[in-house]
Amino acid sequence: MVSVGIVGGSGYMGGEVLRVLLRHPHVDIAWVTSRSPGPIEEVHPNLYDTGLHFVRLEDVKTPDFVLLALPTGASIEVAVRFLQAGARVIDLGAAFRLHERHTWERVYGQPHAAWPLVHEAVYGMPELHAERIRTARLVANPGCFASAAILGLAPLLKAGLVEAQRLVVDGLSGTAGAGAEFSRAIHHPEIGGNVVLYNVVGHRHTYEMEQELRSVAHQGVHVHFTPCYIPIVRGIVDICRCFPTEALSRTQLLAVFRQFYQEQPFVKVYNQPQDVDDAWHYKPYPWVSAVAGTNYCYIGMDVDDERHSIVVMSVLDSVGKGGAHVAIENLNIMAGFARTAGLLDRGFHP
Amino acid sequence: MVSVGIVGGSGYMGGEVLRVLLRHPHVDIAWVTSRSPGPIEEVHPNLYDTGLHFVRLEDVKTPDFVLLALPTGASIEVAVRFLQAGARVIDLGAAFRLHERHTWERVYGQPHAAWPLVHEAVYGMPELHAERIRTARLVANPGCFASAAILGLAPLLKAGLVEAQRLVVDGLSGTAGAGAEFSRAIHHPEIGGNVVLYNVVGHRHTYEMEQELRSVAHQGVHVHFTPCYIPIVRGIVDICRCFPTEALSRTQLLAVFRQFYQEQPFVKVYNQPQDVDDAWHYKPYPWVSAVAGTNYCYIGMDVDDERHSIVVMSVLDSVGKGGAHVAIENLNIMAGFARTAGLLDRGFHP
Amino acid sequence: MVSVGIVGGSGYMGGEVLRVLLRHPHVDIAWVTSRSPGPIEEVHPNLYDTGLHFVRLEDVKTPDFVLLALPTGASIEVAVRFLQAGARVIDLGAAFRLHERHTWERVYGQPHAAWPLVHEAVYGMPELHAERIRTARLVANPGCFASAAILGLAPLLKAGLVEAQRLVVDGLSGTAGAGAEFSRAIHHPEIGGNVVLYNVVGHRHTYEMEQELRSVAHQGVHVHFTPCYIPIVRGIVDICRCFPTEALSRTQLLAVFRQFYQEQPFVKVYNQPQDVDDAWHYKPYPWVSAVAGTNYCYIGMDVDDERHSIVVMSVLDSVGKGGAHVAIENLNIMAGFARTAGLLDRGFHP
Amino acid sequence: MVSVGIVGGSGYMGGEVLRVLLRHPHVDIAWVTSRSPGPIEEVHPNLYDTGLHFVRLEDVKTPDFVLLALPTGASIEVAVRFLQAGARVIDLGAAFRLHERHTWERVYGQPHAAWPLVHEAVYGMPELHAERIRTARLVANPGCFASAAILGLAPLLKAGLVEAQRLVVDGLSGTAGAGAEFSRAIHHPEIGGNVVLYNVVGHRHTYEMEQELRSVAHQGVHVHFTPCYIPIVRGIVDICRCFPTEALSRTQLLAVFRQFYQEQPFVKVYNQPQDVDDAWHYKPYPWVSAVAGTNYCYIGMDVDDERHSIVVMSVLDSVGKGGAHVAIENLNIMAGFARTAGLLDRGFHP
Repeated sequence: MVSVGIVGGSGYMGGEVLRVLLRHPHVDIAWVTSRSPGPIEEVHPNLYDTGLHFVRLEDVKTPDFVLLALPTGASIEVAVRFLQAGARVIDLGAAFRLHERHTWERVYGQPHAAWPLVHEAVYGMPELHAERIRTARLVANPGCFASAAILGLAPLLKAGLVEAQRLVVDGLSGTAGAGAEFSRAIHHPEIGGNVVLYNVVGHRHTYEMEQELRSVAHQGVHVHFTPCYIPIVRGIVDICRCFPTEALSRTQLLAVFRQFYQEQPFVKVYNQPQDVDDAWHYKPYPWVSAVAGTNYCYIGMDVDDERHSIVVMSVLDSVGKGGAHVAIENLNIMAGFARTAGLLDRGFHP
Repeated sequence: MVSVGIVGGSGYMGGEVLRVLLRHPHVDIAWVTSRSPGPIEEVHPNLYDTGLHFVRLEDVKTPDFVLLALPTGASIEVAVRFLQAGARVIDLGAAFRLHERHTWERVYGQPHAAWPLVHEAVYGMPELHAERIRTARLVANPGCFASAAILGLAPLLKAGLVEAQRLVVDGLSGTAGAGAEFSRAIHHPEIGGNVVLYNVVGHRHTYEMEQELRSVAHQGVHVHFTPCYIPIVRGIVDICRCFPTEALSRTQLLAVFRQFYQEQPFVKVYNQPQDVDDAWHYKPYPWVSAVAGTNYCYIGMDVDDERHSIVVMSVLDSVGKGGAHVAIENLNIMAGFARTAGLLDRGFHP
Repeated sequence: MVSVGIVGGSGYMGGEVLRVLLRHPHVDIAWVTSRSPGPIEEVHPNLYDTGLHFVRLEDVKTPDFVLLALPTGASIEVAVRFLQAGARVIDLGAAFRLHERHTWERVYGQPHAAWPLVHEAVYGMPELHAERIRTARLVANPGCFASAAILGLAPLLKAGLVEAQRLVVDGLSGTAGAGAEFSRAIHHPEIGGNVVLYNVVGHRHTYEMEQELRSVAHQGVHVHFTPCYIPIVRGIVDICRCFPTEALSRTQLLAVFRQFYQEQPFVKVYNQPQDVDDAWHYKPYPWVSAVAGTNYCYIGMDVDDERHSIVVMSVLDSVGKGGAHVAIENLNIMAGFARTAGLLDRGFHP
Repeated sequence: MVSVGIVGGSGYMGGEVLRVLLRHPHVDIAWVTSRSPGPIEEVHPNLYDTGLHFVRLEDVKTPDFVLLALPTGASIEVAVRFLQAGARVIDLGAAFRLHERHTWERVYGQPHAAWPLVHEAVYGMPELHAERIRTARLVANPGCFASAAILGLAPLLKAGLVEAQRLVVDGLSGTAGAGAEFSRAIHHPEIGGNVVLYNVVGHRHTYEMEQELRSVAHQGVHVHFTPCYIPIVRGIVDICRCFPTEALSRTQLLAVFRQFYQEQPFVKVYNQPQDVDDAWHYKPYPWVSAVAGTNYCYIGMDVDDERHSIVVMSVLDSVGKGGAHVAIENLNIMAGFARTAGLLDRGFHP
């Protein structure tokens, strides 16, 4: 058993961490903080009658692990505090994800108050960095769009099969990804029946995608990424289009993905035949609703033989595999638990 | 450990039974049937890569327990087969719910092929009939609207606090309650942005509500029930209005419910003050989204002192506490397991 | 042609008034105000490239008619200003709806700054008060839930057919009814897949319903009203249950409604047979999606012969017949135009 | 005045044609057919009490114009019948859109029963072919995804500014685009909270896009197109990514679009600055909800200076500018009416 503190429990990420950890076999929840102390069910009605209360950050002791679900700027200071006190820290925000200081400061529009910590922070994607996560003091949990895109494109870039400068990703996000803070983009009357495109070039997650894929590809990459909100609550769908450097059959493509993920418990590679017109009723492509509330990422793919391009569809939950759940996967790895501990729940249908 | 067979695994009820039983600590899934054998993920994409396949009903052996998720007519014959072979049966359909034959045959528009079985069937609502469920061979799982209404009204009728002839219930249902079969009512273009009222008087579940509440009240009751579909997937909201026979304060009302459900693990009684105009942001009434995918029923209430009436809000998931999950609660009781085994997962927020 | 000014054009009500008046054959839009001047399409993207700009209230001249789409408190002062300047005023808010001062001040939680105006204000429901609207200087546009309930119940109360103390109304509202101001109740992650009950007893619109129905019934009435938000954008569904004072057939009921509304252009009475189980695919009850964006109210009904009660379903759009459109209907009546001018557009399907 | 017959009035396209033509100033609706004669409101509840009835195709006379809203195969035969009888025909289906027979027959999986008609059919996109539409006997209305993509990309290809082989289009569609026929993809429980990708390579509309853009570009083009359904009812969002052949500023890009569409009444080019992070609340990109139910197409764009690519966002309603409304625009042109007759209604907000 390890003790875990959650900083920022009143947001959607913090709430989901809490929900999963309440049933985790090897974790004691030491405390969960919020700016407004009180019963957690006033914020998270799913957790009615658990007896848990939010406490103030200034009142808590140092546990074994601290999970930070805070705005970017705020998490740096809190990370420093708990690292100095001896805890290991998983930051669900963006403070420690990018390795280049000038890029980070430009993209996030602020100076970084503790840049040296970035050098030891590990980008918390277990499929790429499990070994380094194991011993890390500080893990930087990936962004949700970035998680789906990196998982969807890494096998192709590792194998050198596609043009690295022409990776096109359109990302569809549920509104939970925008968070509990009110905004016009996810005000129901505005987003209901609508699609809200935003930051259509240069979205912050682009830089994570490029950093991690560059590292996999051993060459420069450009990800042309455009996000939008759609009126679903949970889920990320990254539709990735890329161009093969030489002819590639659907069978070969599938084999590349199957091999890349053969040891990975949470990535499921779909075998979806191309002739879906007749069969799709029974063989859908990956459905994002199926992974809501889980740590699973489903990946499907197809090849356009006529036009020589590849489509990869990568779906996950922004507060699941794209956020809270992968943070717990990282915790499991850091603590030496089974990597799947507390994370094997499947999603709903329907 | 007990062995459990699921008949009708390709519908939404059967799929949810399957999802929960896959992680149940004391159950072996013996088999799951469907008219179309094949990998279960072709129907239930949430269960990708579990290795399970649908089999044909005619090929299966008799397990300890059989759960039937079939159309009303079809389940009678199958129940007979497995009871005769020595299994205990939980029927998620309506075949064995009503005690009066002429009512059943009129409401369901068919003769009943095995009426004597109804005499031993127990209405599977653990909050009312746990003792009889324990030893039953045949349990008739309640209807979803009926579950919410009975749980919301039983405490008042038991205490004789309200007029039994004037129970008004409006039921809002997610589309999962309508099932996997296509219909105009839940075709997305028709129900998106819409409310589909149907069977606005004399809906079948009305008779279950009246039967069970009559039994609790020891007098005749009339439930004036009107259902509709709204564009959410999971969840039932029963808004119940009744008229107190004498003045009743909100505090007294709350005490009645708290006492009635004090031993019940899955019914949560909300204490929501009346002056919600300012406070509601932090103290919402029961939210149905919070119990989706779970075995919980949340109940809230209020008193209109000016007009002398009571509102009870009772929310649950039609394929959770209103269907698949309560079937497993009944299984737990019948098998002598902890009543909460496999059922303590909380819902999502958001 | 008359000149019309719109105060509060950046909200949903004001925007809808603007959309309809832009195509009205007899109206010149004099100006439209907002606290934030600028092109209207920055707020209302449907009106891209119309050339209209919001102006400040302090800069405008007095037109023939002023439509107020303001918070309750604010509209009183503005109404006074324009009435004194000689304009006729239609208030889309609640400032002048209730005739009893102590009720208004209790319900709206503030003293009323211009109570004498209430004596001349006409409750702007054309089906009840067309004659008085014609000559009014000040019209108080009804509340959305109240519009649907009054239209659904008035024929029964006028004819003395139902118990006036036992009118039960459950109101389902789209989120546009909650307005452009952010709140948790209509934050998409919270309301998506959810039903948000609020003010379940004593909602403000209750008092309008009771006032108008009392006047029709010539006796005291109690409306037991409970509202909720559901995840649709536009639309109000009032499900009304009442108890007949003597036996009433479905045919008689239909005749009562047909006669009451025979001269009314915007109320459509549905003839929906009771045996909908087989036929409903082709004969749905009134659908709220069908009246979104229009000035129509659809009313359906049924009789429960077994339990002696009546269901009336009344649907309209809260920013259509329940708000902006009926304001223009009132304007047409006041100005002596055809009552239907600019208002005959039908809704969408799907 | 011209007389117009509508074949296939019970589908969504036919219903929308009917709704708009009912208010068209220069059109008499001669008749509207359906396989199931009866009052139109049984299918289209928005048109309650119009007095219109569906009739059988075999019973109708030849009007001036016939609009076909039929499945692809069926429309060929009907088009032949009415052309021979002297009517002018607008086909809302795909029968006459593609100019290459082998492509058509492969893509639609059937032999074409009247190929010579294709030679005189005009692809019904007024922004490209208004002159030829004017005199056409037979107009082939474009597909919905194709309309958005062609309008979004034609200015760039005409000006030779982008690589013609690397046009990437992801298309998001509301469920109305899938039609009234039931299918799992748009069964509410399946699509609610979900994204349903389908035909991710080689979708039929791809060939229309390529044909029309090739013609504009005077060179071969490849459109890499992937569609999906999202849980909104009406609307198409085509997110188009392309690669400039030489450096292009946002200002230059905007000028190209502004000039291309300066004479076009229904295409609105958005001027949306790149720094949307702060300003987006008031300056959203094109919103598809704003054009639902209309003949407008909104186009926005941005340039990624860092990665040298262009995003074009093109939004319209699949049963509006992408279907029924553009058919009426074509009718207006053919009949010599004002091109905007009956089509100037704006969409809703919200």
